[in-house]
Amino acid sequence: MPLRINADRLHARLEAMARVGATPAGGVGRTTLSDEDRAGRDLLRSWLEAAGLAVRVDDFGNMTARRPGREDGPPVQLGSHLDSVPRGGRFDGALGVLAALEVVETLNDTNVTTRLPLEVINFTDEEGARFEPAMLGSGAAIGHFPKDYVYARTDARGLRFADELRRIGYQGREADRPRPGAAYLELHIEQGPALEAAGLPVGVVAGIVGITWLEVTVVGQSDHAGPTPMGLRHDALVAAARVIDRIDRLVRQVDERAVATVGRLRIEPDVINIIPGRAVFSVDLRHPDLATLDALVTHLEAIVGSETVASGLEATIDRFWTSEPTPFSPAVVDAVAAAADELELPTMRLWSGAGHDAKYMAEVCPTAMIFVRSQGGVSHCEQEYSTPEDVEAGANVLLGAALRLAGTTEGVDG
Amino acid sequence: MPLRINADRLHARLEAMARVGATPAGGVGRTTLSDEDRAGRDLLRSWLEAAGLAVRVDDFGNMTARRPGREDGPPVQLGSHLDSVPRGGRFDGALGVLAALEVVETLNDTNVTTRLPLEVINFTDEEGARFEPAMLGSGAAIGHFPKDYVYARTDARGLRFADELRRIGYQGREADRPRPGAAYLELHIEQGPALEAAGLPVGVVAGIVGITWLEVTVVGQSDHAGPTPMGLRHDALVAAARVIDRIDRLVRQVDERAVATVGRLRIEPDVINIIPGRAVFSVDLRHPDLATLDALVTHLEAIVGSETVASGLEATIDRFWTSEPTPFSPAVVDAVAAAADELELPTMRLWSGAGHDAKYMAEVCPTAMIFVRSQGGVSHCEQEYSTPEDVEAGANVLLGAALRLAGTTEGVDG
Repeated sequence: MPLRINADRLHARLEAMARVGATPAGGVGRTTLSDEDRAGRDLLRSWLEAAGLAVRVDDFGNMTARRPGREDGPPVQLGSHLDSVPRGGRFDGALGVLAALEVVETLNDTNVTTRLPLEVINFTDEEGARFEPAMLGSGAAIGHFPKDYVYARTDARGLRFADELRRIGYQGREADRPRPGAAYLELHIEQGPALEAAGLPVGVVAGIVGITWLEVTVVGQSDHAGPTPMGLRHDALVAAARVIDRIDRLVRQVDERAVATVGRLRIEPDVINIIPGRAVFSVDLRHPDLATLDALVTHLEAIVGSETVASGLEATIDRFWTSEPTPFSPAVVDAVAAAADELELPTMRLWSGAGHDAKYMAEVCPTAMIFVRSQGGVSHCEQEYSTPEDVEAGANVLLGAALRLAGTTEGVDG
Repeated sequence: MPLRINADRLHARLEAMARVGATPAGGVGRTTLSDEDRAGRDLLRSWLEAAGLAVRVDDFGNMTARRPGREDGPPVQLGSHLDSVPRGGRFDGALGVLAALEVVETLNDTNVTTRLPLEVINFTDEEGARFEPAMLGSGAAIGHFPKDYVYARTDARGLRFADELRRIGYQGREADRPRPGAAYLELHIEQGPALEAAGLPVGVVAGIVGITWLEVTVVGQSDHAGPTPMGLRHDALVAAARVIDRIDRLVRQVDERAVATVGRLRIEPDVINIIPGRAVFSVDLRHPDLATLDALVTHLEAIVGSETVASGLEATIDRFWTSEPTPFSPAVVDAVAAAADELELPTMRLWSGAGHDAKYMAEVCPTAMIFVRSQGGVSHCEQEYSTPEDVEAGANVLLGAALRLAGTTEGVDG
């Protein structure tokens, strides 16, 4: 029988943490370095210390608590984030941190000592909702963002990251940054509907998809809607509409992992009886494979060309940002899958369509994630919800995978 | 040989009128009841009086000047408007009024007396750019708009039509409204590219198309762009894009007189990495035949249904405004065509896609219009331009048609 977490304790702590920054409709508002963030950090620290762990705080506010192993090797790290978007859900981020704490508590309760140390990590500013960009704390910890850059980030009111970090009392030392471990594991709600659609409580995350963002500008000719016959029009919106339709059809033909979204669209002059002379829209393309992502961009260019130039319109495409795919470590992914199997939990492998702290951690150590089914696939809203049973299942997979990676099935026996 | 207008005099007067409210880039700003409008009216009045005509001003500021005929029957009326949009062109409106004056001057020069009287009319506020709605003066003159309604119209600064009419000294008497005549003729620039595309200087206008405006709302589901597989999306913009594409294809299959324009489009939440949950767009449909227009609406409803409901989205369609088609009088249209033939001018018959004072006049007397080719089809901008040759051709057609309708070829002989 695999070891199992104490679900009542985990649910109670999720409930207690949800009261920190609670919003009227059942969500939380715990934006980075706010008073609510401080209160959440203080609560986590008190629980970690009560579990016998010392808490380190680094120069970005990232919190790391180590449970020693039988050997003093690189730790197996279990982390996520306590910050939220302004009216966010109670599970996004907090679940991964509190489940990591629960893993430690369970091992304490059962007197299991792992071979490698375990670390619980709470990363600063995963959401990027107050200080952009997202995943600032984990990115800074691995050296992706320079310290000066991070400290100079400002929020909408002009307050600096460094000043707010000091204000809440969480500016620690560079020496206390989480260092590359033996493995990094992150439990997180799915933020998508795939597990719900498949009827599965837990998913094994094989990587984080590549994302590329483009802006397409179509230039036609504004004219009066009445006197201009269809044959003489250069309607930028009609051309844009055809591109939007064809992008949607294109990605459906690639494979089920390809997604494309036109989320932003502006037409000019945007007047009821004037033919649009200009349409500007974004395209968000995602796929686990960079070559496929690049091929999608090439297809998009061809589609835009055929719907504009051929009809006497002009178009430009600006591919202004790309985040390359992050395949996770096969060994760590397999450990997650094996832990789920041992618990007799049906799962599926899937790729994360959104970014997580695991993206940066994967650059410095073997990494994988576990997703928990999210009702309706919604997140970043107060309605975000995962059932107690699914939360428990996910935390048990985290525990099982951590034990496999920290090398200590024999510990259970001792 | 048909009688011909004095082109030099007409061009000189167009030039002089263009100096009233001239804008730096060669256009005019003569919004209704402004100081510039008053100056334009004063200039017209001076020319009409110099041509021996008495000027009547009605209670809406409409100006009418009669040249007596041999009989005291209902007059043949030649009119348009001197007001413009804020940065408008020098031909839109002014051409029709000054060409009407030129017809009178030409008859004076050649001592022609028509059987029926001729009237030159300058309607107030055709553009509706300062006091909405458009064609306020002609609509009021025929009783379409009640006097209280017209007087209470306010501009963007809250100034009332009645007060501004009094301020510029053009509030006349109800008894001096233009009364239904034997025929109404209006020369106007095309405001569209059809004549230019056909290589013709002048067009015979057979009517004003029907217009119907609709607002379509598509409701899908907002979701994160990353984690939501294509098969689970309810993307309101993709559905809207397919509707926009299909409307465009639909009207091209009807006939060359059908036009459809989606001029306004708003999506929500309009964020790069969020699937649009809502799309709201306008549809402007136009056709000379009301039954065809209604059939287009029925087709549109079917298209919206097939692109939304079938995919699990919802949609509503609000047909909130319709202006029925206005076919002109065949006899008056034929008189225009015959005048052009006599001048050996190649022409085409076309429908006006935009509204004009002729729309209201057609409700009370036999009406037609003459279009002059407009470079690039542009109007309501300072770049609006018609060549002196095309202006001359249009004015000669107006003269010829007026003589036919006022019944007086024998007058030329006498």
